[in-house]
Amino acid sequence: MQIPFIPQINLNNVPEKPLGRLAELGVQIAAICGTPRPRIEHPVIVIMAADHGVARHGVSAFPQAVTAQMVRNVLRGGAASSVLARHANAELVVVDVGVDADLSDLPGLRQHKIAPGTRDMTREPAMSREQAWRAVEVGINIASELIAAGADLIAPGEKGIGNTTAASAVIAALCELPVASVTGRGTGIDDAGWERKVALIEAALALHRPDPADGLGVLAAVGGFDIGGMAGLMLGAAARRVPVLVDGVIAGAAALVALNLAPNIQPYLIATHRSVERGHAAVFERIGSTPLFDLQMRLGEASGAALAIPLCQVACTLVGKITTTQEFSHA
Amino acid sequence: MQIPFIPQINLNNVPEKPLGRLAELGVQIAAICGTPRPRIEHPVIVIMAADHGVARHGVSAFPQAVTAQMVRNVLRGGAASSVLARHANAELVVVDVGVDADLSDLPGLRQHKIAPGTRDMTREPAMSREQAWRAVEVGINIASELIAAGADLIAPGEKGIGNTTAASAVIAALCELPVASVTGRGTGIDDAGWERKVALIEAALALHRPDPADGLGVLAAVGGFDIGGMAGLMLGAAARRVPVLVDGVIAGAAALVALNLAPNIQPYLIATHRSVERGHAAVFERIGSTPLFDLQMRLGEASGAALAIPLCQVACTLVGKITTTQEFSHA
Repeated sequence: MQIPFIPQINLNNVPEKPLGRLAELGVQIAAICGTPRPRIEHPVIVIMAADHGVARHGVSAFPQAVTAQMVRNVLRGGAASSVLARHANAELVVVDVGVDADLSDLPGLRQHKIAPGTRDMTREPAMSREQAWRAVEVGINIASELIAAGADLIAPGEKGIGNTTAASAVIAALCELPVASVTGRGTGIDDAGWERKVALIEAALALHRPDPADGLGVLAAVGGFDIGGMAGLMLGAAARRVPVLVDGVIAGAAALVALNLAPNIQPYLIATHRSVERGHAAVFERIGSTPLFDLQMRLGEASGAALAIPLCQVACTLVGKITTTQEFSHA
Repeated sequence: MQIPFIPQINLNNVPEKPLGRLAELGVQIAAICGTPRPRIEHPVIVIMAADHGVARHGVSAFPQAVTAQMVRNVLRGGAASSVLARHANAELVVVDVGVDADLSDLPGLRQHKIAPGTRDMTREPAMSREQAWRAVEVGINIASELIAAGADLIAPGEKGIGNTTAASAVIAALCELPVASVTGRGTGIDDAGWERKVALIEAALALHRPDPADGLGVLAAVGGFDIGGMAGLMLGAAARRVPVLVDGVIAGAAALVALNLAPNIQPYLIATHRSVERGHAAVFERIGSTPLFDLQMRLGEASGAALAIPLCQVACTLVGKITTTQEFSHA
């Protein structure tokens, strides 16, 4: 197993500015890219699609078959991520990293299926340690390939019924927090559904007792192929000094896994929006990045990250370029 | 005095959606425009530039002469608003509604100077009631003209040393709140400067005792030509069913004046960002709109509003167009 080397960068010297978080964002991207004049001209949204064994317990308002339908919808251009990618002039890449359906005929879908969904984490580990590594590796390789072809910003997203359950389990395990405090309602389950979801995650964590210091172990025990793939995208991007946009709670879980595998990744991560999903707050604290938006969204699939792309672009343009009142102080 | 008629619209029926505030934004713009398929293709940022008599008391970190310099800088394309307007593909209109300098030679500047700055509100009313109305009228007329020429979104901004002092005074008067609770540090004054600013506003309000029910009276007593002009832009836009982006705390003060003159304007106002300036929170509560961003900005000049333009455009595209997981519920 080979985690790519991530150059260390330091973001502690951003002075207070009238453009606040936007100025910080520009400085952060400049530091990541290692240039005082960064530009983002080829952003790429990568959707990791996978199914989750735990979905059989009804943790989502939707059956597992919806994952494959949503993948088709994204590729057809009808999903939120499709529309948002077009608006942001971003390339949209969709990867089957573990959908429980035969999508091998689907034009435009990248085929990297590790297995047709994870196993049921409440009975056995979601995946083997070797599969967990393969999921991460898929992400690293895709990021490397995209960046070699010109990508200068990576926004990992996901599709998969049951994935907020896996994400909450990963966050609870890695942050050592009570499950209820990091578990939300996903696609919109009711109170009883939420209680069942919490109980299932608690049962899985009690069964596997994953070591919080072992990110890959946590991923294998209670994670998902999508989360592993997204963590890999993050590692692969940072290793090539490309900024990473962190979307919703599933991307947040992936960021925690990436951070565990390579602590240097921290300043490469840009939190984009505050999801209504519980668990997101714990992620932001750990990755040390304040989200740019609070739009009360809970859609995932890189939707919040896509909205942040124009903001990153404008932040790059503003770095060192504009004149604010501040600079007229000796007038 | 003729306030234009603003059609009444109702926004109470937005269901909870996975796209949260973004879905609400799309529904709001559709309601404003009166079409299920709104589009924003010609957004216009209008900067109202004016000086403030109260600036002679050192309420800003900068001398009054900076206003004219900043106006030149905006028109030269070097200011944040210039860069942000280009990024948003927005037209940028700059209006001299009361700068204390002869800018009549400046190409591209719209000449509507009411007076070379307001008078010192701590000694006399900032302007006459007739001047207050003329400032509002300038805004209404410019909005009407721009919309007749195709503008489909108006983002009022401002330039003017001392304008956060006038804005805080207007907010304190119209919301009947303690001055200290709605007064910030503007361009970045220190503690002593802030205390002086609060004391000056308190003195002005004690002197004029403007009636909180009389928006034009408050504007005349302690406001500014920029605030009046921005209120007029808002009224003129809403009267023609065009959405209005509310930027920082000065735009917030203008929104309160507009709301006082025509309560129907409320659903036409879109709060864009939460400024670090105190006083903004009181505005959002009054206009009933939650800001889209919290970027810790305090620059004004429509910078926050400009950043919201792509978000408004994407919200329009998403209205009724995309398919989310929700719609696969019977799969």
